[in-house]
Amino acid sequence: MSAAPFTTEDYAARMARVVADAGAAGLDGVLVTPGPDLVWLTGYRPTAITERLTVLLLTADREPTLLVPTLERPDAEAAPGAAATTLADWTDGADPYAAAAALLRGTGTYAVADSAWALHLLGLQAALPGTTYHAVTGRLPMLRAVKDADELGRLAAAGAAADATYEEIVGVRFAGRRETDVAADLADLLRAHGHEQVDFTVVGSGPNGANPHHEAGERVIREGDCVVLDFGGLMAGYGSDTSRTVSVGEPGPDVREVHEVVRLAQQAGVDAVRPGVACQEVDRAARAVIADAGYGDRFIHRTGHGIGVTTHEPPYMIEGEELPLVPGMCFSVEPGIYLPGRFGVRIEDIVTVTADGSRRLNATDRGLRVVG
Amino acid sequence: MSAAPFTTEDYAARMARVVADAGAAGLDGVLVTPGPDLVWLTGYRPTAITERLTVLLLTADREPTLLVPTLERPDAEAAPGAAATTLADWTDGADPYAAAAALLRGTGTYAVADSAWALHLLGLQAALPGTTYHAVTGRLPMLRAVKDADELGRLAAAGAAADATYEEIVGVRFAGRRETDVAADLADLLRAHGHEQVDFTVVGSGPNGANPHHEAGERVIREGDCVVLDFGGLMAGYGSDTSRTVSVGEPGPDVREVHEVVRLAQQAGVDAVRPGVACQEVDRAARAVIADAGYGDRFIHRTGHGIGVTTHEPPYMIEGEELPLVPGMCFSVEPGIYLPGRFGVRIEDIVTVTADGSRRLNATDRGLRVVG
Repeated sequence: MSAAPFTTEDYAARMARVVADAGAAGLDGVLVTPGPDLVWLTGYRPTAITERLTVLLLTADREPTLLVPTLERPDAEAAPGAAATTLADWTDGADPYAAAAALLRGTGTYAVADSAWALHLLGLQAALPGTTYHAVTGRLPMLRAVKDADELGRLAAAGAAADATYEEIVGVRFAGRRETDVAADLADLLRAHGHEQVDFTVVGSGPNGANPHHEAGERVIREGDCVVLDFGGLMAGYGSDTSRTVSVGEPGPDVREVHEVVRLAQQAGVDAVRPGVACQEVDRAARAVIADAGYGDRFIHRTGHGIGVTTHEPPYMIEGEELPLVPGMCFSVEPGIYLPGRFGVRIEDIVTVTADGSRRLNATDRGLRVVG
Repeated sequence: MSAAPFTTEDYAARMARVVADAGAAGLDGVLVTPGPDLVWLTGYRPTAITERLTVLLLTADREPTLLVPTLERPDAEAAPGAAATTLADWTDGADPYAAAAALLRGTGTYAVADSAWALHLLGLQAALPGTTYHAVTGRLPMLRAVKDADELGRLAAAGAAADATYEEIVGVRFAGRRETDVAADLADLLRAHGHEQVDFTVVGSGPNGANPHHEAGERVIREGDCVVLDFGGLMAGYGSDTSRTVSVGEPGPDVREVHEVVRLAQQAGVDAVRPGVACQEVDRAARAVIADAGYGDRFIHRTGHGIGVTTHEPPYMIEGEELPLVPGMCFSVEPGIYLPGRFGVRIEDIVTVTADGSRRLNATDRGLRVVG
């Protein structure tokens, strides 16, 4: 895909929005260490995430400041969003927490990136004992959740590439090959269709499909197996994630029945998506179909998760999540049924919230495909 | 390499040692989230490190307990160290911090893995406001620092593979090829010599060598360039990391002079290594040579870092680190001189502390090699 790179102005706008959102949420600012939030805000992705403190300080008091180790300064300067920040650096042997503290309010309340290292949070808490911290997800769950038109375009393109991957994978040989062989095919196809990064290629055949976190193993796929496929990664910086369950040869009646229940549950979940609805309603809608069919205790995970610069992020479609859906949010709807020792079925599309409902970013057939 | 896998007993012994060390350090226990500490303690490496809490609780009050998300329980059970723990799980929608809190003392003091997510630390702090946390590195800096004979064997084998890589890379063509081409050769060679994971392949030619964190770029290497090579990864679960600086064609007098200063500084650093010496003395010894030669302000990083199940961990050879060296510690000694706009030189070996001094785990020639 040939998406134009985000510009310094794009990043500056995101940073300004976060400062405004933080103020509205009663926060004095947001502290962003390396990870997806920093990628989204500045385009900066350090070579490694280490014990050396790198942090973007977004506060109402001053312009955005990016504090980095001195020896990583050239890399930071090369990031497109860096020009919209004041760069500051600290040298090995100096106290980076004192350097950060000098830029914060001694009694301030700050949101900190979920994946910031405990080492760094503890360093800040010790340097400024009067400050209070909250996880970004807790206080600013919408930080990256609502995608703009450019981001939606990238997510749609990544979804189309995942769909093209599915259309090709159903044509490869399953019977007699190991799960890892099919997983390698999935990775090759995702890359061939434009992904720069493959995050996961789940091939759960037969009883392995009943473990929703099984990736792919040495098991040889057999005629009669039900196989869960769940794959995705990043294309032009944005994620794909889709699941389909296929049958190697003609499926038995049990697989047919369970697959149809999951298909209807997935449809019900998607149908529940529209602006203003709480995230948990999407989970409830999908779960009700599965529970009504008698498989309620075999749907052992939440119904979905957000997607953006990562393949797994807020918002979460889960009981208890009362956050209302907003146009531009993108997330998975992926109910499943898992029968230990037998097989599993999962069907997953990425969905975006539109002005009056939803739009799927995956469009392949959700029926039970028979493969060879 | 065909190192025998670590056994449940190996992991149980490590956990017992950590509990004892924690008690001796005045801690009620250690909380270990996914990452290198968890790999070292249990062999468990979840598919992804996410917002779902996974934590190993090592306390004097009870047997080691590994708390995991329900849907990741099968993966956790498969880890060799899991059999030495009590496995507990929590289901999507439940409060994992309450589950962890029930296993901790309400007024306890705990060390927490450096790379634990802030999200999780904040969750624990909120669930148990009377508890106190410290970073593992601050309170138990020796946690993984002293290697046993099996670990030393793996580190030595990884070092030998890195050396074999160097001996081959000096035979490839440099002039006229891009840095990224040589970097790809390094990665291929590390894998060919047994590495299962390549962590970094720095090729810093000409002025790029003056940025110590430059990886490899599109620059075409030219006759007359000085090129910093710094590469490593994991083999049988343990790390390699070595640097040499080569000259493409005959070097000029400036490169010769700077290289010789760095070579003598590296030798001085290694010579300073023996039991009981403070880490900072290794840094001082190397730094003094460079400062005496007039390049003190061009050595812009610490002299070394530990290595084990990661390629970058405590102990750190840096001014202010008073931790005494102990036999079995392994770390890099890697001074450098960086001349902006011109070139850089770095020489690095992994060294282990012996009963009466040190032993290098890298043995290739540290003189200035001329390549084609």
